[in-house]
Amino acid sequence: MEEGVSIYLVSDSNVDTAENIASIAAAHFDTFIEKIKKYPYVGDKNQIEEIIMEAANDANSIIIHTMVVPELKDYLLKKAQKFGIKIVDVMGPVINAIEDSTGISPHTNLAKNNKEDYLKKIEVIEFAVKYDDGKDAMGILLADVVVIGVSRTSKTPLCMYLAHKYIKAANLPLVPEIEPPQELFEINPKKIFGLTIDPEVLVKIRKERLKSLGLDANAIYATEERVKKEIKYAEEVMKRLGCTVIDVTNKAVEETANVILNVLKGGEIS
Amino acid sequence: MEEGVSIYLVSDSNVDTAENIASIAAAHFDTFIEKIKKYPYVGDKNQIEEIIMEAANDANSIIIHTMVVPELKDYLLKKAQKFGIKIVDVMGPVINAIEDSTGISPHTNLAKNNKEDYLKKIEVIEFAVKYDDGKDAMGILLADVVVIGVSRTSKTPLCMYLAHKYIKAANLPLVPEIEPPQELFEINPKKIFGLTIDPEVLVKIRKERLKSLGLDANAIYATEERVKKEIKYAEEVMKRLGCTVIDVTNKAVEETANVILNVLKGGEIS
Repeated sequence: MEEGVSIYLVSDSNVDTAENIASIAAAHFDTFIEKIKKYPYVGDKNQIEEIIMEAANDANSIIIHTMVVPELKDYLLKKAQKFGIKIVDVMGPVINAIEDSTGISPHTNLAKNNKEDYLKKIEVIEFAVKYDDGKDAMGILLADVVVIGVSRTSKTPLCMYLAHKYIKAANLPLVPEIEPPQELFEINPKKIFGLTIDPEVLVKIRKERLKSLGLDANAIYATEERVKKEIKYAEEVMKRLGCTVIDVTNKAVEETANVILNVLKGGEIS
Repeated sequence: MEEGVSIYLVSDSNVDTAENIASIAAAHFDTFIEKIKKYPYVGDKNQIEEIIMEAANDANSIIIHTMVVPELKDYLLKKAQKFGIKIVDVMGPVINAIEDSTGISPHTNLAKNNKEDYLKKIEVIEFAVKYDDGKDAMGILLADVVVIGVSRTSKTPLCMYLAHKYIKAANLPLVPEIEPPQELFEINPKKIFGLTIDPEVLVKIRKERLKSLGLDANAIYATEERVKKEIKYAEEVMKRLGCTVIDVTNKAVEETANVILNVLKGGEIS
């Protein structure tokens, strides 16, 4: 039998992402994958040594890794290079791109310090990403918190912030022309948080948005009439639901999130 | 509100992998994700134009893509660079690594020519990767075909080959010291294929393997006594199951796969 490739999937969290990537890649080749080895939750250099020892002895080894902890990741890279093993860093380019964009340094020791927290955090963030913008109503049923509101009320950053607090948050835009999914009326309204905003402020926000898109700032989307109609509709939906309503006018995302966290803890809206 | 990053997830298949990667990355930053836009199944340049137009107007856009079709991928890269948008190519490095290792060129137009075939193929390959080596008995219940046999009978490449034929194949090693999972006895034995092999040939294969690992070729793993014991045990399990048994001695993976495909079609073992 001819020698195929041996794929090593390595991560300091689970290897699901590395599995996905290997599978998409494999779909494009007729060649056999001779061997697939999975090393999730790699936490020390000894484990890396073992992986490298095995990979070094296969004819065509490729390591696909989603390691983030710098010292382990660097060690893996150094060892792989030493033994001439091909290695692909999945997360590095994405983390670098975010760091470059924001100027903020990543918490790269998260994976190392609190393994369970780390995995839980990835899980809830993945939830927020998956169920952003209400495209899949299943998110409404599975979420700890469902955020609703008209366009440009900061639903997405709010849900991401809540995810960083380990809360599974889905969000759903409200538009007069589209009836909200039935699921919204089936869940406990205590889980639902409606964002409302001063119409004048929202008009300004939307005009800015249109300008940044190079569009006419006088488009219907940013008129007072349209904005008032949308907010009125949204507030009617919130009333029907009996959910908590938060006025986000001039509120930072953290402040809105703190209101939600407070309500969830059984407190009141301040 | 301060400006966060806008994440664009783009693919010529689904965006699940890009979602995973974005979520792992986001776990490492306190900064907000301001916006998440998903563009699965991108199939032409017009769609790419639209994505770029929107991304170009956000303050901190990052495109994370799993595109494989060369002309679309190149177009996306060129346009992103033109507008100064950060872009991360997830699949490129993995496909290049496999191409370098094997000398085989990928079928990069798969995604373009047969969208449904492509998605189905990724799905079945992912199944084979996930349920390789019997670590999760759920695979036995979900598979179209379950391949069993002792170590070094080419179970993995066989399952990958079957996946390329759109068959969901799981595999499970048989070892005398470990009772096979109960699930194996609950499924239709027509789905199970037991691989057996001439003991002398297997002794040679295992000795080669030990040598390539830099280990003593006389280790128990490669002795005639051990190999005979394992094969005898495996054949007993196959008899209990009443499954199809295939002698893979000197058979290429394609030949073994063809036997299985033939049986599945209702034919006989030649």
